[in-house]
Amino acid sequence: MDATPYRPLTAADLPARLGDLPALRALLGPDPAQWEAVEVGDGNLNLVFIVTGPAGRAVAKQALPYVRLVGESWPLPLDRSWFEWNALTRQAARDPGAVPRVHHFDRGQALIVMDFLDGHRILRRSLIEGVEHPGLAAFLGRFAARTLFRSSDLAMPAAARKADLALFAGNVALLDITEALVFTDPYFAAPLNKHTSPQLNALAAELRADARLKIEAQHLKAAFTANAEALLHGDLHTGSVMVVGERAAVIDPEFAAYGPIGFDVGMLIANFLMAFHAQSGHEPAPGGRDAYRAWILGVAGGIWDEFAAEFARLWRTERRGILYPAALYEDQGQPEAAEAALADRLAAIWTDALGFMGVEIHRRILGLAHNADFETIADPDRRAACEAPALRLGRRLALGRRTIRDMAEVVALARAEDAAQSPSR
Amino acid sequence: MDATPYRPLTAADLPARLGDLPALRALLGPDPAQWEAVEVGDGNLNLVFIVTGPAGRAVAKQALPYVRLVGESWPLPLDRSWFEWNALTRQAARDPGAVPRVHHFDRGQALIVMDFLDGHRILRRSLIEGVEHPGLAAFLGRFAARTLFRSSDLAMPAAARKADLALFAGNVALLDITEALVFTDPYFAAPLNKHTSPQLNALAAELRADARLKIEAQHLKAAFTANAEALLHGDLHTGSVMVVGERAAVIDPEFAAYGPIGFDVGMLIANFLMAFHAQSGHEPAPGGRDAYRAWILGVAGGIWDEFAAEFARLWRTERRGILYPAALYEDQGQPEAAEAALADRLAAIWTDALGFMGVEIHRRILGLAHNADFETIADPDRRAACEAPALRLGRRLALGRRTIRDMAEVVALARAEDAAQSPSR
Repeated sequence: MDATPYRPLTAADLPARLGDLPALRALLGPDPAQWEAVEVGDGNLNLVFIVTGPAGRAVAKQALPYVRLVGESWPLPLDRSWFEWNALTRQAARDPGAVPRVHHFDRGQALIVMDFLDGHRILRRSLIEGVEHPGLAAFLGRFAARTLFRSSDLAMPAAARKADLALFAGNVALLDITEALVFTDPYFAAPLNKHTSPQLNALAAELRADARLKIEAQHLKAAFTANAEALLHGDLHTGSVMVVGERAAVIDPEFAAYGPIGFDVGMLIANFLMAFHAQSGHEPAPGGRDAYRAWILGVAGGIWDEFAAEFARLWRTERRGILYPAALYEDQGQPEAAEAALADRLAAIWTDALGFMGVEIHRRILGLAHNADFETIADPDRRAACEAPALRLGRRLALGRRTIRDMAEVVALARAEDAAQSPSR
Repeated sequence: MDATPYRPLTAADLPARLGDLPALRALLGPDPAQWEAVEVGDGNLNLVFIVTGPAGRAVAKQALPYVRLVGESWPLPLDRSWFEWNALTRQAARDPGAVPRVHHFDRGQALIVMDFLDGHRILRRSLIEGVEHPGLAAFLGRFAARTLFRSSDLAMPAAARKADLALFAGNVALLDITEALVFTDPYFAAPLNKHTSPQLNALAAELRADARLKIEAQHLKAAFTANAEALLHGDLHTGSVMVVGERAAVIDPEFAAYGPIGFDVGMLIANFLMAFHAQSGHEPAPGGRDAYRAWILGVAGGIWDEFAAEFARLWRTERRGILYPAALYEDQGQPEAAEAALADRLAAIWTDALGFMGVEIHRRILGLAHNADFETIADPDRRAACEAPALRLGRRLALGRRTIRDMAEVVALARAEDAAQSPSR
């Protein structure tokens, strides 16, 4: 199929077009005539098919040459699929079992065929509906620690890391989306922005006039564009996690590129903080989701704890890269120096993560790409009453990133903003 | 010549082998039989020929497939010449006239033919001999500001910067030299190290036991490997600057790669600080170089001042990249926010630069590649008496990088360490 010009798949022609693939025949059954494809893509960018055969199922994800959400007026390179495939295979090696297995990749067709995750649904839906998932914080914290540590100069051979840095630097179009939509557009009246209006107009104007906030946002952008510490997922929010019961998987790393470790960690935690603030828009009666609120905040804190614990474990057991070599510390009888260096690194990641939490919250409420957590709250007054405390929290996190000490303090700030909005809680 | 296998030039065969090049004929005269080549390379890595013809002169620099200083046992990729050519052409565009013009480049032969800088000599020799060069600080400060600002996301189109980031990420072998020899080897008993022994043994042992210093050195290494702010010269010391009177040029950017802005600035200033500490090894009688000492320290301080002033000027007039866009500040009637962001960036560069000053000093005295400033002091007691205060200064700069405020404080620290070693001054 490599020589065939790119053509989008349809549910009707998929069995015929992919019917020769041995990997797919092995998964679904040998007779493509018995396969059925359904297009289920509800994301912003791509075609996603579930293909069912007598022997099993698979997912076929194909990039479109434009942003699906917007249409052909916003072209987007097909090769984002190439970066996604490169990221998926690396994540699979670095945290085995955490991402769908890839069964087939076709760069020319911008097509990845991968595991169908039986029974899974998007985590964000669970958070809207109030469904708990045991073990989620541990899974996500470890995923972040393993994929980030193991792609950094702490672990990789330097030449291999530089080759990957160069490879993913080609993911220009998707990086451009993050650079503009996360760090800049939300902080002025950019054409693509939207927000709950008029309820949030005054607060949006206040944030957009806050010079210190806009400076911090650009400091964070500078870190995002320059500080190539590790291979980021790049879009690690609760819409990129699939769950069923205690099982979970991370999907959709097409925004992958080298960047600061705190970006993935901060974006992930921020989406739980937004899920927390959205609860009063989803609970049947005030206070009806109080236990679930506590669970969400427990996961947010747990993600950091698990991330830090796993990062520390890898620091102690897999630090074989060019940074902080044992030759300087342990081999000189100074293991405490390696521990002190680890504490410094985690503190720097923490400071970054707090800032990225703040801008992620802002862009999801004031920018182009909103969250279902808030968007599914139909009543704009009720929605704005959820979004406003989140926006205020975002500012406190971005501006306070050098002084806020730990997740307990973040959780306390989130609860305080929530309570200030709804004094009954 | 591109199809010819690589072969090192000799002074004897150079006219015949390069005689067909129109650029060289135009420079030297049309008859290669009248050209004379002399090999003058005194660096660590390459062949350098001065070619003289009836009409003029040129320099031909050819990489060898190994480290010239060490021999064929230490292979080094010829393609460093490719990175040097890419850096030279970019520097020429970003600070016109500051680097030798390139007349011919042959990637297969790892050969760059460039301007002969008439009458120029290596700056480090002037610093050893006590020769002043008016305007030097302004030239060097502006060179750093222009090449660094204009290669960053402050100025370049984002896609072009990412393409250059990827290109120079291929300069793996030379980056490996910096990573190992600057940041790690000096801080333990690495096989390639050397120092003035036994005079410095105790101080070397003290520095190598200093856990906090070794942690800072690796934090700086982490910044060097990950924080791809700008296209660095990568080896910007006083041996990479040629001077005659008030004229100067920067040469030898084969270590070029993206990295933190403070690296070039800090390495450059550190070499003036070492030149200062070396003066008592070169003055005919104690105090005989006092005025020259003051001139050197004035240049060191002036480099930072000129760098900061030019960086600020470019920030105000050429900030057209994706970072700190005017849309957020000036266009909103908040020019003071852009100024505050600039102050933050310069403060961050300053903190980095102080750290890189410290490790640069240490590696030049305890590592593999030493400075002629100290090495030309034949008497080891006298040499060590120059090196020891420099080592102590290096530690104060690396450990104090978050608290030292300005170059006046750096100069005061240098003078204090010098005075502590030689109370007569």
